[in-house]
Amino acid sequence: MPKDPGNGRPLDYPPSEKTQVKRLHERARYDRESAHAILDAGLLCHVGYVIDGQPYVTPTAYWREGDWIYWHGSSASKMLRKVKEGVPVCLTVAMLDGLVLARSGFHSSVNYRSLMAFGEAELVEEEAEKIRSLDSFIDRLTPGRAAEVRPPTSQEMKATTVLRMKLSEVAMKIRSGPPADDEEDYALDVWAGVVPIRTVIEAPEDDPRLKAGVAAPGYLDEIRINRLD
Amino acid sequence: MPKDPGNGRPLDYPPSEKTQVKRLHERARYDRESAHAILDAGLLCHVGYVIDGQPYVTPTAYWREGDWIYWHGSSASKMLRKVKEGVPVCLTVAMLDGLVLARSGFHSSVNYRSLMAFGEAELVEEEAEKIRSLDSFIDRLTPGRAAEVRPPTSQEMKATTVLRMKLSEVAMKIRSGPPADDEEDYALDVWAGVVPIRTVIEAPEDDPRLKAGVAAPGYLDEIRINRLD
Repeated sequence: MPKDPGNGRPLDYPPSEKTQVKRLHERARYDRESAHAILDAGLLCHVGYVIDGQPYVTPTAYWREGDWIYWHGSSASKMLRKVKEGVPVCLTVAMLDGLVLARSGFHSSVNYRSLMAFGEAELVEEEAEKIRSLDSFIDRLTPGRAAEVRPPTSQEMKATTVLRMKLSEVAMKIRSGPPADDEEDYALDVWAGVVPIRTVIEAPEDDPRLKAGVAAPGYLDEIRINRLD
Repeated sequence: MPKDPGNGRPLDYPPSEKTQVKRLHERARYDRESAHAILDAGLLCHVGYVIDGQPYVTPTAYWREGDWIYWHGSSASKMLRKVKEGVPVCLTVAMLDGLVLARSGFHSSVNYRSLMAFGEAELVEEEAEKIRSLDSFIDRLTPGRAAEVRPPTSQEMKATTVLRMKLSEVAMKIRSGPPADDEEDYALDVWAGVVPIRTVIEAPEDDPRLKAGVAAPGYLDEIRINRLD
């Protein structure tokens, strides 16, 4: 496996014309371990597709299994109906980790993790496999919950489309750490540093119609989204 | 001004074929007040554009002035070089506000705010206007900081492209509140409710090379991103 000369990581997703990061290439990653870490931290992706030359960017939840990204939604959704035709897709995941306040506006930035995956989606058609993948989506965030909720009806399954796309043409960019100022600017009397941004999961709020005696399950305290650690 | 029959809000951005929300239309908004509230809460958008039939979705920071969305970046950026040609763009902002855990997988959802804006970007060319808009970006998050940092050099200004797009074809979707379960499912012994997700700004971290005696400015305590309130 060829290695990235910049960081020694494997080039699991060899850079293509579309995915080669041209500027600030020290922020680039093309390895599977980084891709899985970004995808497993996030929950929200943005799916880009084209209808009659017009780009659309639809936010939606996703999950990962192996080297596949899954997403789902209503079978009536414009995005899903288009994307399941096997058209070119760009699926992007991005998480903000901090504001990078440099001594000049020019060097100010943000810390972030981002992944762009190019490809074509495929429909998960087989009913048992659809149910299994949707259960794994539930259990990914709330382990054990898939077995607790009321199972899907066949009508619900018909109304739900599940798509997946294999990771193959992938570009990641990650920035972390303090500002990188021009050498002479370090002498300025300007505060500089990083303001960390974090996604927190707050205390669960019972449904107002929660049945008496039903306790909040333990997995609610373990939910993690967008976390760096 | 015509009103939205669903919620009585003005249809400031009249629904078009692209922006008419077809399912769950009770989540739809087309009014300026909602658009400005979503845009002013967020920081990260996803810009969709097409090159040779291939969609690209690039995450980037944005800011709002009046009914215009601004974004910026390196003049060498593939996204900015393409988008400044006046091609069709879809710019999407989405924020997760919570997990909605219903008594079935089918009715489980997320609480969120999202905005999709369609249009063509225009270049902010005039140097004074470019500087003014970049200053307003800095001051939006950290009021007063634009006057503290080292001003941009003419070379930095050349290396920076600023684009803007007018809000005109805009679709918003907002979901909030508890799950909406099938009536018979309320009797199940399954916990249901909302797990709130919040973006928090943590304590600033001084640059390791911060000049001795430079104190952290007060505006660092006032930064708000993705907040609902």
